[in-house]
Amino acid sequence: MIAKEEIRDWFTSLQLDICKQLEETDGKGEFKNDPWERPGGGGGVSRVLTHGNIIEKGGVNFSAVWGKTPEPVLKSMKLQSGEHPDFFATGVSIVIHPFNPMVPIIHMNVRYFEMSNGAWWFGGGIDLTPHYIQEADAKYFHLQLKSVCDKHDPSYYPEFKKWADDYFFIRHRNETRGIGGIFFDYLKDEAPFNKASRFEFIKSVGSSFASIYTYFMKKNHLLPFTDKQKHWQHLRRGRYVEFNLVWDRGTKFGLDTEGRTESILMSLPPMAEWIYRFEAEPSSEEEKTLGLLRKGIDWIHA
Amino acid sequence: MIAKEEIRDWFTSLQLDICKQLEETDGKGEFKNDPWERPGGGGGVSRVLTHGNIIEKGGVNFSAVWGKTPEPVLKSMKLQSGEHPDFFATGVSIVIHPFNPMVPIIHMNVRYFEMSNGAWWFGGGIDLTPHYIQEADAKYFHLQLKSVCDKHDPSYYPEFKKWADDYFFIRHRNETRGIGGIFFDYLKDEAPFNKASRFEFIKSVGSSFASIYTYFMKKNHLLPFTDKQKHWQHLRRGRYVEFNLVWDRGTKFGLDTEGRTESILMSLPPMAEWIYRFEAEPSSEEEKTLGLLRKGIDWIHA
Repeated sequence: MIAKEEIRDWFTSLQLDICKQLEETDGKGEFKNDPWERPGGGGGVSRVLTHGNIIEKGGVNFSAVWGKTPEPVLKSMKLQSGEHPDFFATGVSIVIHPFNPMVPIIHMNVRYFEMSNGAWWFGGGIDLTPHYIQEADAKYFHLQLKSVCDKHDPSYYPEFKKWADDYFFIRHRNETRGIGGIFFDYLKDEAPFNKASRFEFIKSVGSSFASIYTYFMKKNHLLPFTDKQKHWQHLRRGRYVEFNLVWDRGTKFGLDTEGRTESILMSLPPMAEWIYRFEAEPSSEEEKTLGLLRKGIDWIHA
Repeated sequence: MIAKEEIRDWFTSLQLDICKQLEETDGKGEFKNDPWERPGGGGGVSRVLTHGNIIEKGGVNFSAVWGKTPEPVLKSMKLQSGEHPDFFATGVSIVIHPFNPMVPIIHMNVRYFEMSNGAWWFGGGIDLTPHYIQEADAKYFHLQLKSVCDKHDPSYYPEFKKWADDYFFIRHRNETRGIGGIFFDYLKDEAPFNKASRFEFIKSVGSSFASIYTYFMKKNHLLPFTDKQKHWQHLRRGRYVEFNLVWDRGTKFGLDTEGRTESILMSLPPMAEWIYRFEAEPSSEEEKTLGLLRKGIDWIHA
């Protein structure tokens, strides 16, 4: 049986490895190390890079926390009243906001949760939010994710792709956050899967992040852009703020359970704008992007 | 008995009157009229002013909507299952984001709700969010509100001032949104108050708005400010976004019940910024303001 310490240690090294690869590709920015402790048990290390060559603001957070299981988790687990197990949770969370609007925003999370009553599960996902959607880039992104998933089980990609479409959805705008990706939760001991095979999948997802995102960084960061396109980026970041603060369950859970606010909200962009009833020009790239913020697009065969 | 149409009509004229006074003081910006209809019944008129002399982005919204009472309201009313009354709701909501960081952000709401089972109540409030808190301005603001309240009942100001402190609180930051003001809800037929006296109070609150805010507009809009102070304003607006999207029950209710998104989110600022672990310089005006974002300050006697 894989011990929680082994998973935690793997996440620690994943954080360092990702930061190193992002720094190398950025060429200027450096992640600053910010360790913190959780009063109820455990803590984490937030690593934030700002004002890089390519990355305007990016956070790569690791945490391993434990203690009394928070009420909202107990409720969602439908435990018998009177049962008060302890919990242990560890994970890596990433959000990168690039400077150039032609480079997409990316988010990745891999996490492990266990309780003293024996329950455990993995969760996580990767999703991409291009300010301007290019079908070729979307196809490349989804092909990478499918290849990561297919190494483990043919059901993973279709199931987790749909889950991402449903999860990364801004209901009050009737828009997806971006082009989706994969999202999964409660991956547990369920034939044909066991803890070892679930962990191997999580490792593949985590390890795929740096090469996927540095591909977009390298390919797009020198593309020219106008003030108007930068302004559009700020409006799209406004939507990113709306999703994270209104709908993201991880953010809500963190703020409700008195998590570390600065680490939870490192996902927010450096700058965002809102315009009342903004309308994209007909036949513009902005309008094209808005038209593609829909669930259920098969990017690989589009 | 005061009919809902009378209340609705009074709110309609309040919206026009406030827009007129704000335009006169701004001297440049004009509110654009944007009427909308609600599929389930009723509608509203959003009036938004952008790029004024003093107002960078401001919204003054009126609505009167009706239909089947939404589930979240039924639940909060603890109605017998099987009871499905209709509702009618009308109100005016305002948020003004000024250009000059020395002018405060202001919010006002007055609203009336009734159900076909006979229940009715008024709610609302005014609160001020200075980017830089000046005690003299805070005292002036609270004296105005106290004077409005005291005309109706001596219990109103102390009770509603405390309610505002508790309501306009950003829990995950352990900060109040600004210097508070008054907040009240479920004002109903409860001796010594009746519908007429409650409505008179609502009218006083609504009518006080323009003179209170134009006082700050006139007094502060020519004060000089630096880039650093404008940057601070953007960070404070970031907190305003966090409050509205994470904690504001009105926003949450609107988005949950498929209200008109653009009208609900007109409260968001034109531009906001986030910095990971921003720290104000010791003994700066920014640090002084952060130290005053606390519940329970008696601004009138401070």
